[in-house]
Amino acid sequence: MKNQFIVIEGIEGAGKTTAHEAVIAILHEHGINNLIVTREPGGTPLSEKLRILIKHGVDGETVTDKAELLMLYAARVQLLENVIKPALSRGDWVIGDRHDLSSLAYQVGGRGLDIKLVNTLRNMVLGDFRPDLTLYLDVKPEISLQRILTRSKLDRIEQESLCFFERVRNYYLSLVSGDSKIVIIDAQQSLYEVELSLRKILYNWLAGKHL
Amino acid sequence: MKNQFIVIEGIEGAGKTTAHEAVIAILHEHGINNLIVTREPGGTPLSEKLRILIKHGVDGETVTDKAELLMLYAARVQLLENVIKPALSRGDWVIGDRHDLSSLAYQVGGRGLDIKLVNTLRNMVLGDFRPDLTLYLDVKPEISLQRILTRSKLDRIEQESLCFFERVRNYYLSLVSGDSKIVIIDAQQSLYEVELSLRKILYNWLAGKHL
Repeated sequence: MKNQFIVIEGIEGAGKTTAHEAVIAILHEHGINNLIVTREPGGTPLSEKLRILIKHGVDGETVTDKAELLMLYAARVQLLENVIKPALSRGDWVIGDRHDLSSLAYQVGGRGLDIKLVNTLRNMVLGDFRPDLTLYLDVKPEISLQRILTRSKLDRIEQESLCFFERVRNYYLSLVSGDSKIVIIDAQQSLYEVELSLRKILYNWLAGKHL
Repeated sequence: MKNQFIVIEGIEGAGKTTAHEAVIAILHEHGINNLIVTREPGGTPLSEKLRILIKHGVDGETVTDKAELLMLYAARVQLLENVIKPALSRGDWVIGDRHDLSSLAYQVGGRGLDIKLVNTLRNMVLGDFRPDLTLYLDVKPEISLQRILTRSKLDRIEQESLCFFERVRNYYLSLVSGDSKIVIIDAQQSLYEVELSLRKILYNWLAGKHL
Protein backbone atom coordinates (compact mmCIF):
# COMPACT_ATOMS: atom_id res chain seq x y z
CA MET A 1 0.00 0.00 0.00
CA LYS A 2 1.20 3.44 -0.90
CA ASN A 3 2.06 5.63 2.07
CA GLN A 4 -0.61 8.20 2.90
CA PHE A 5 -1.15 11.63 4.43
CA ILE A 6 -3.74 11.53 7.23
CA VAL A 7 -4.94 14.70 8.95
CA ILE A 8 -6.84 15.18 12.20
CA GLU A 9 -9.04 18.27 12.38
CA GLY A 10 -11.39 19.88 14.87
CA ILE A 11 -11.81 22.87 17.17
CA GLU A 12 -9.90 23.42 20.41
CA GLY A 13 -10.77 20.76 22.96
CA ALA A 14 -12.10 18.28 20.38
CA GLY A 15 -9.51 15.74 21.50
CA LYS A 16 -7.08 15.96 18.58
CA THR A 17 -4.04 15.01 20.65
CA THR A 18 -5.64 11.83 21.95
CA ALA A 19 -6.89 10.97 18.46
CA HIS A 20 -3.41 11.57 17.09
CA GLU A 21 -1.94 9.02 19.48
CA ALA A 22 -4.71 6.53 18.68
CA VAL A 23 -4.12 6.85 14.92
CA ILE A 24 -0.40 6.21 15.37
CA ALA A 25 -1.14 3.15 17.54
CA ILE A 26 -3.58 1.76 14.95
CA LEU A 27 -1.08 2.26 12.13
CA HIS A 28 1.58 0.50 14.20
CA GLU A 29 -0.84 -2.43 14.61
CA HIS A 30 -0.89 -2.60 10.80
CA GLY A 31 2.89 -2.75 10.71
CA ILE A 32 3.18 0.84 9.55
CA ASN A 33 6.14 2.26 11.45
CA ASN A 34 7.71 4.60 8.92
CA LEU A 35 5.58 7.55 9.86
CA ILE A 36 6.21 11.12 10.86
CA VAL A 37 3.90 13.39 12.82
CA THR A 38 3.43 17.07 12.06
CA ARG A 39 1.35 19.88 13.46
CA GLU A 40 0.06 23.12 11.98
CA PRO A 41 0.89 25.84 12.27
CA GLY A 42 4.37 24.54 12.97
CA GLY A 43 6.37 21.44 12.22
CA THR A 44 9.57 23.09 10.95
CA PRO A 45 11.93 25.42 12.85
CA LEU A 46 10.64 28.47 10.95
CA SER A 47 7.00 27.36 11.11
CA GLU A 48 7.26 26.82 14.87
CA LYS A 49 8.48 30.41 15.24
CA LEU A 50 5.48 31.53 13.18
CA ARG A 51 3.22 29.37 15.38
CA ILE A 52 4.31 31.37 18.42
CA LEU A 53 3.61 34.67 16.63
CA ILE A 54 0.20 33.42 15.46
CA LYS A 55 -0.85 32.03 18.83
CA HIS A 56 0.50 34.73 21.11
CA GLY A 57 1.17 37.84 19.01
CA VAL A 58 3.89 40.22 20.24
CA ASP A 59 3.77 42.79 23.05
CA GLY A 60 -0.01 43.19 22.96
CA GLU A 61 -0.03 44.36 19.32
CA THR A 62 -3.29 43.59 17.52
CA VAL A 63 -2.74 40.77 15.02
CA THR A 64 -4.80 41.65 11.94
CA ASP A 65 -6.86 38.86 10.40
CA LYS A 66 -4.90 39.21 7.16
CA ALA A 67 -1.51 38.96 8.86
CA GLU A 68 -2.74 35.87 10.71
CA LEU A 69 -3.84 34.33 7.41
CA LEU A 70 -0.56 35.16 5.67
CA MET A 71 1.54 33.79 8.53
CA LEU A 72 -0.52 30.58 8.53
CA TYR A 73 0.17 30.02 4.84
CA ALA A 74 3.84 30.96 5.23
CA ALA A 75 4.10 28.28 7.93
CA ARG A 76 2.15 25.84 5.74
CA VAL A 77 4.32 26.25 2.65
CA GLN A 78 7.46 25.67 4.74
CA LEU A 79 6.02 22.50 6.26
CA LEU A 80 4.70 21.25 2.94
CA GLU A 81 7.88 21.81 0.92
CA ASN A 82 10.46 21.00 3.60
CA VAL A 83 8.73 18.18 5.50
CA ILE A 84 5.48 16.69 4.16
CA LYS A 85 6.33 16.35 0.45
CA PRO A 86 9.86 15.00 1.09
CA ALA A 87 8.44 12.47 3.61
CA LEU A 88 5.77 11.27 1.18
CA SER A 89 8.36 11.06 -1.61
CA ARG A 90 10.62 8.77 0.40
CA GLY A 91 7.68 6.52 1.30
CA ASP A 92 6.89 7.67 4.83
CA TRP A 93 3.39 8.13 6.16
CA VAL A 94 2.51 11.57 7.48
CA ILE A 95 0.03 12.16 10.32
CA GLY A 96 -0.90 15.82 10.64
CA ASP A 97 -2.46 17.64 13.57
CA ARG A 98 -4.45 20.17 11.49
CA HIS A 99 -3.85 21.17 7.87
CA ASP A 100 -5.53 23.38 5.32
CA LEU A 101 -9.12 22.67 6.36
CA SER A 102 -8.40 24.57 9.59
CA SER A 103 -7.69 27.76 7.65
CA LEU A 104 -11.02 27.54 5.87
CA ALA A 105 -12.89 26.85 9.11
CA TYR A 106 -11.07 29.43 11.27
CA GLN A 107 -10.19 32.19 8.80
CA VAL A 108 -13.29 32.09 6.60
CA GLY A 109 -15.84 30.62 9.02
CA GLY A 110 -14.47 32.18 12.22
CA ARG A 111 -12.85 35.44 11.13
CA GLY A 112 -15.12 36.09 8.17
CA LEU A 113 -12.33 36.53 5.62
CA ASP A 114 -13.28 36.31 1.94
CA ILE A 115 -13.27 32.71 0.70
CA LYS A 116 -11.85 33.88 -2.65
CA LEU A 117 -8.87 35.39 -0.88
CA VAL A 118 -8.20 32.22 1.09
CA ASN A 119 -8.64 30.09 -2.03
CA THR A 120 -6.04 32.20 -3.82
CA LEU A 121 -3.52 31.45 -1.07
CA ARG A 122 -4.52 27.77 -0.98
CA ASN A 123 -3.97 27.53 -4.69
CA MET A 124 -0.63 29.32 -4.43
CA VAL A 125 0.67 27.15 -1.61
CA LEU A 126 -1.02 23.78 -2.17
CA GLY A 127 -2.00 23.58 -5.81
CA ASP A 128 -3.78 20.22 -6.10
CA PHE A 129 -2.16 18.77 -2.98
CA ARG A 130 -4.73 17.30 -0.56
CA PRO A 131 -4.61 14.82 2.38
CA ASP A 132 -5.61 11.24 1.57
CA LEU A 133 -7.83 11.07 4.64
CA THR A 134 -9.08 13.73 7.07
CA LEU A 135 -10.58 12.72 10.40
CA TYR A 136 -12.78 15.56 11.62
CA LEU A 137 -13.56 15.42 15.35
CA ASP A 138 -16.92 17.10 15.77
CA VAL A 139 -17.90 18.62 19.11
CA LYS A 140 -20.14 21.44 20.29
CA PRO A 141 -18.03 24.43 21.41
CA GLU A 142 -19.78 24.64 24.78
CA ILE A 143 -18.46 21.17 25.53
CA SER A 144 -14.97 21.55 24.02
CA LEU A 145 -14.38 24.94 25.66
CA GLN A 146 -15.15 23.46 29.05
CA ARG A 147 -12.44 20.90 28.34
CA ILE A 148 -9.77 23.49 27.47
CA LEU A 149 -10.64 25.68 30.47
CA THR A 150 -8.88 23.08 32.60
CA ARG A 151 -5.63 23.86 30.75
CA SER A 152 -3.20 26.23 32.45
CA LYS A 153 -3.12 29.24 30.14
CA LEU A 154 -5.20 29.92 27.04
CA ASP A 155 -3.54 31.33 23.90
CA ARG A 156 -4.88 34.10 21.63
CA ILE A 157 -7.02 31.71 19.57
CA GLU A 158 -8.30 29.69 22.53
CA GLN A 159 -9.51 32.94 24.12
CA GLU A 160 -11.98 33.54 21.29
CA SER A 161 -15.70 33.60 22.08
CA LEU A 162 -18.20 30.76 22.02
CA CYS A 163 -19.80 32.40 18.95
CA PHE A 164 -16.44 32.32 17.15
CA PHE A 165 -16.10 28.59 17.71
CA GLU A 166 -19.70 28.02 16.69
CA ARG A 167 -18.97 29.73 13.37
CA VAL A 168 -15.81 27.64 13.00
CA ARG A 169 -17.67 24.41 13.76
CA ASN A 170 -20.51 25.23 11.37
CA TYR A 171 -18.01 25.97 8.62
CA TYR A 172 -16.19 22.72 9.31
CA LEU A 173 -19.49 20.86 9.03
CA SER A 174 -20.36 22.57 5.74
CA LEU A 175 -16.99 21.58 4.28
CA VAL A 176 -17.02 18.05 5.60
CA SER A 177 -20.36 16.93 4.28
CA GLY A 178 -20.13 15.40 0.84
CA ASP A 179 -16.33 15.10 0.79
CA SER A 180 -15.46 11.41 0.41
CA LYS A 181 -11.97 11.96 1.86
CA ILE A 182 -13.24 13.45 5.13
CA VAL A 183 -14.83 11.38 7.89
CA ILE A 184 -16.78 12.93 10.77
CA ILE A 185 -16.24 11.48 14.23
CA ASP A 186 -18.54 12.29 17.12
CA ALA A 187 -16.06 13.77 19.59
CA GLN A 188 -18.67 14.31 22.29
CA GLN A 189 -18.37 10.65 23.15
CA SER A 190 -15.96 9.53 25.83
CA LEU A 191 -12.29 9.29 24.84
CA TYR A 192 -12.66 5.50 24.85
CA GLU A 193 -15.61 5.64 22.44
CA VAL A 194 -13.78 8.11 20.21
CA GLU A 195 -10.86 5.73 20.01
CA LEU A 196 -13.21 2.85 19.15
CA SER A 197 -14.73 4.96 16.36
CA LEU A 198 -11.28 5.85 15.02
CA ARG A 199 -10.26 2.21 15.16
CA LYS A 200 -13.31 1.10 13.18
CA ILE A 201 -12.92 3.85 10.58
CA LEU A 202 -9.20 3.30 10.06
CA TYR A 203 -9.47 -0.50 9.89
CA ASN A 204 -12.13 -0.18 7.19
CA TRP A 205 -10.22 2.50 5.35
CA LEU A 206 -6.96 0.54 5.40
CA ALA A 207 -8.83 -2.60 4.30
CA GLY A 208 -10.24 -0.62 1.38
CA LYS A 209 -6.67 0.29 0.50
CA HIS A 210 -5.90 -3.46 0.46
CA LEU A 211 -3.63 -3.39 3.46
CA MET B 1 -0.22 71.11 3.30
CA LYS B 2 -1.61 67.67 3.92
CA ASN B 3 0.80 65.28 5.58
CA GLN B 4 2.37 62.77 3.22
CA PHE B 5 3.85 59.29 3.03
CA ILE B 6 7.36 59.33 1.56
CA VAL B 7 9.27 56.12 0.82
CA ILE B 8 12.94 55.53 0.11
CA GLU B 9 13.74 52.54 -2.08
CA GLY B 10 16.82 50.88 -3.54
CA ILE B 11 18.99 47.79 -3.34
CA GLU B 12 21.36 46.97 -0.48
CA GLY B 13 24.16 49.51 -0.26
CA ALA B 14 22.30 52.18 -2.25
CA GLY B 15 22.57 54.56 0.70
CA LYS B 16 19.00 54.40 1.99
CA THR B 17 19.93 55.08 5.61
CA THR B 18 21.85 58.25 4.74
CA ALA B 19 19.04 59.35 2.43
CA HIS B 20 16.53 58.70 5.20
CA GLU B 21 18.38 61.03 7.53
CA ALA B 22 18.67 63.67 4.82
CA VAL B 23 14.93 63.56 4.08
CA ILE B 24 14.11 64.01 7.76
CA ALA B 25 16.52 66.97 7.99
CA ILE B 26 14.98 68.59 4.90
CA LEU B 27 11.46 68.18 6.26
CA HIS B 28 12.56 69.69 9.56
CA GLU B 29 13.89 72.70 7.60
CA HIS B 30 10.34 73.09 6.27
CA GLY B 31 8.96 73.08 9.79
CA ILE B 32 7.62 69.55 9.47
CA ASN B 33 8.36 67.91 12.81
CA ASN B 34 5.34 65.67 13.28
CA LEU B 35 6.84 62.76 11.42
CA ILE B 36 7.41 59.10 12.14
CA VAL B 37 9.94 56.84 10.52
CA THR B 38 9.23 53.21 9.58
CA ARG B 39 11.14 50.43 7.95
CA GLU B 40 10.06 47.33 6.04
CA PRO B 41 9.94 44.57 6.74
CA GLY B 42 9.44 45.69 10.33
CA GLY B 43 8.19 48.75 12.15
CA THR B 44 5.86 47.02 14.63
CA PRO B 45 6.74 44.49 17.35
CA LEU B 46 5.26 41.62 15.31
CA SER B 47 6.70 42.85 12.01
CA GLU B 48 10.16 43.17 13.56
CA LYS B 49 9.94 39.51 14.61
CA LEU B 50 8.99 38.64 11.04
CA ARG B 51 11.91 40.75 9.78
CA ILE B 52 14.31 38.54 11.71
CA LEU B 53 12.74 35.38 10.26
CA ILE B 54 12.85 36.84 6.73
CA LYS B 55 16.43 38.07 6.96
CA HIS B 56 18.00 35.20 8.85
CA GLY B 57 15.66 32.20 8.58
CA VAL B 58 15.80 29.63 11.40
CA ASP B 59 18.38 26.91 12.09
CA GLY B 60 19.55 26.67 8.48
CA GLU B 61 16.09 25.70 7.17
CA THR B 62 15.54 26.72 3.55
CA VAL B 63 13.13 29.65 3.39
CA THR B 64 10.89 29.05 0.36
CA ASP B 65 10.27 32.02 -1.92
CA LYS B 66 6.55 31.77 -1.21
CA ALA B 67 7.00 31.78 2.57
CA GLU B 68 9.28 34.80 2.22
CA LEU B 69 6.62 36.58 0.16
CA LEU B 70 3.83 35.72 2.61
CA MET B 71 5.88 36.83 5.63
CA LEU B 72 6.70 40.12 3.88
CA TYR B 73 3.02 40.85 3.33
CA ALA B 74 2.11 39.74 6.85
CA ALA B 75 4.66 42.25 8.16
CA ARG B 76 3.36 44.89 5.74
CA VAL B 77 -0.29 44.58 6.70
CA GLN B 78 0.63 44.90 10.40
CA LEU B 79 2.68 48.04 9.73
CA LEU B 80 0.05 49.54 7.45
CA GLU B 81 -2.95 48.96 9.72
CA ASN B 82 -1.27 49.51 13.09
CA VAL B 83 1.22 52.29 12.30
CA ILE B 84 1.13 53.97 8.86
CA LYS B 85 -2.62 54.51 8.44
CA PRO B 86 -3.18 55.67 12.04
CA ALA B 87 -0.22 58.10 11.71
CA LEU B 88 -1.53 59.56 8.45
CA SER B 89 -5.03 59.82 9.95
CA ARG B 90 -3.82 61.90 12.88
CA GLY B 91 -1.88 64.21 10.55
CA ASP B 92 1.66 62.89 10.95
CA TRP B 93 4.07 62.49 8.08
CA VAL B 94 5.49 59.01 7.50
CA ILE B 95 8.96 58.36 6.10
CA GLY B 96 9.42 54.74 5.11
CA ASP B 97 12.62 52.81 4.53
CA ARG B 98 11.24 50.50 1.83
CA HIS B 99 7.62 49.67 1.08
CA ASP B 100 5.69 47.70 -1.48
CA LEU B 101 7.93 48.49 -4.46
CA SER B 102 10.63 46.37 -2.81
CA SER B 103 8.44 43.28 -2.98
CA LEU B 104 7.91 43.74 -6.70
CA ALA B 105 11.62 44.32 -7.32
CA TYR B 106 12.93 41.54 -5.04
CA GLN B 107 10.20 38.91 -5.21
CA VAL B 108 9.17 39.26 -8.85
CA GLY B 109 12.39 40.69 -10.34
CA GLY B 110 14.85 38.90 -8.07
CA ARG B 111 13.15 35.62 -7.10
CA GLY B 112 11.11 35.26 -10.29
CA LEU B 113 7.73 34.85 -8.56
CA ASP B 114 4.63 35.32 -10.67
CA ILE B 115 3.60 38.99 -10.86
CA LYS B 116 -0.08 37.96 -10.73
CA LEU B 117 0.51 36.22 -7.41
CA VAL B 118 2.27 39.24 -5.94
CA ASN B 119 -0.42 41.56 -7.29
CA THR B 120 -3.08 39.45 -5.56
CA LEU B 121 -1.33 39.94 -2.23
CA ARG B 122 -0.75 43.64 -2.91
CA ASN B 123 -4.41 44.08 -3.64
CA MET B 124 -5.38 42.14 -0.53
CA VAL B 125 -3.09 44.08 1.78
CA LEU B 126 -2.89 47.54 0.20
CA GLY B 127 -5.97 48.01 -1.95
CA ASP B 128 -5.50 51.46 -3.52
CA PHE B 129 -3.06 52.64 -0.86
CA ARG B 130 0.15 54.08 -2.37
CA PRO B 131 2.96 56.37 -1.11
CA ASP B 132 2.71 60.03 -2.11
CA LEU B 133 6.36 60.10 -3.14
CA THR B 134 8.95 57.37 -3.64
CA LEU B 135 12.63 58.24 -3.86
CA TYR B 136 14.42 55.43 -5.68
CA LEU B 137 18.19 55.39 -5.16
CA ASP B 138 19.66 53.82 -8.27
CA VAL B 139 23.05 52.16 -8.15
CA LYS B 140 24.83 49.38 -10.03
CA PRO B 141 25.02 46.24 -7.85
CA GLU B 142 28.79 45.90 -8.37
CA ILE B 143 29.18 49.26 -6.65
CA SER B 144 26.57 48.82 -3.90
CA LEU B 145 27.75 45.32 -3.01
CA GLN B 146 31.27 46.64 -2.50
CA ARG B 147 29.79 49.11 -0.03
CA ILE B 148 27.96 46.46 2.01
CA LEU B 149 30.97 44.14 2.08
CA THR B 150 32.47 46.51 4.60
CA ARG B 151 29.59 45.73 6.99
CA SER B 152 30.27 43.18 9.71
CA LYS B 153 27.93 40.31 8.82
CA LEU B 154 25.72 39.89 5.77
CA ASP B 155 22.14 38.60 6.18
CA ARG B 156 20.35 36.02 4.00
CA ILE B 157 19.24 38.62 1.43
CA GLU B 158 22.55 40.51 1.35
CA GLN B 159 24.33 37.23 0.56
CA GLU B 160 22.49 36.89 -2.75
CA SER B 161 24.49 36.94 -5.98
CA LEU B 162 25.40 39.88 -8.18
CA CYS B 163 23.01 38.49 -10.81
CA PHE B 164 20.16 38.53 -8.26
CA PHE B 165 20.72 42.22 -7.52
CA GLU B 166 21.02 43.00 -11.23
CA ARG B 167 17.59 41.45 -11.77
CA VAL B 168 16.24 43.43 -8.78
CA ARG B 169 17.72 46.69 -10.08
CA ASN B 170 16.41 46.12 -13.61
CA TYR B 171 12.94 45.44 -12.24
CA TYR B 172 13.11 48.58 -10.11
CA LEU B 173 14.05 50.58 -13.19
CA SER B 174 11.21 49.09 -15.22
CA LEU B 175 8.71 50.04 -12.49
CA VAL B 176 10.10 53.49 -11.86
CA SER B 177 10.05 54.83 -15.38
CA GLY B 178 6.82 56.55 -16.23
CA ASP B 179 5.48 56.68 -12.66
CA SER B 180 4.97 60.34 -11.74
CA LYS B 181 5.12 59.56 -8.01
CA ILE B 182 8.55 57.95 -8.19
CA VAL B 183 11.78 59.91 -8.62
CA ILE B 184 15.09 58.27 -9.57
CA ILE B 185 18.21 59.50 -7.80
CA ASP B 186 21.69 58.63 -9.05
CA ALA B 187 23.09 56.90 -5.97
CA GLN B 188 26.48 56.30 -7.55
CA GLN B 189 27.35 59.89 -6.75
CA SER B 190 29.10 60.75 -3.50
CA LEU B 191 26.94 60.90 -0.37
CA TYR B 192 27.22 64.69 -0.51
CA GLU B 193 25.96 64.82 -4.09
CA VAL B 194 23.12 62.38 -3.28
CA GLU B 195 22.05 64.67 -0.46
CA LEU B 196 22.15 67.68 -2.80
CA SER B 197 19.96 65.81 -5.28
CA LEU B 198 17.50 64.86 -2.56
CA ARG B 199 17.44 68.44 -1.33
CA LYS B 200 16.65 69.79 -4.81
CA ILE B 201 13.98 67.18 -5.47
CA LEU B 202 12.25 67.60 -2.13
CA TYR B 203 12.34 71.41 -2.22
CA ASN B 204 10.70 71.37 -5.65
CA TRP B 205 8.20 68.71 -4.63
CA LEU B 206 7.24 70.53 -1.44
CA ALA B 207 6.98 73.82 -3.38
CA GLY B 208 4.64 72.06 -5.81
CA LYS B 209 2.56 71.05 -2.81
CA HIS B 210 2.40 74.77 -1.89
CA LEU B 211 4.44 74.45 1.24
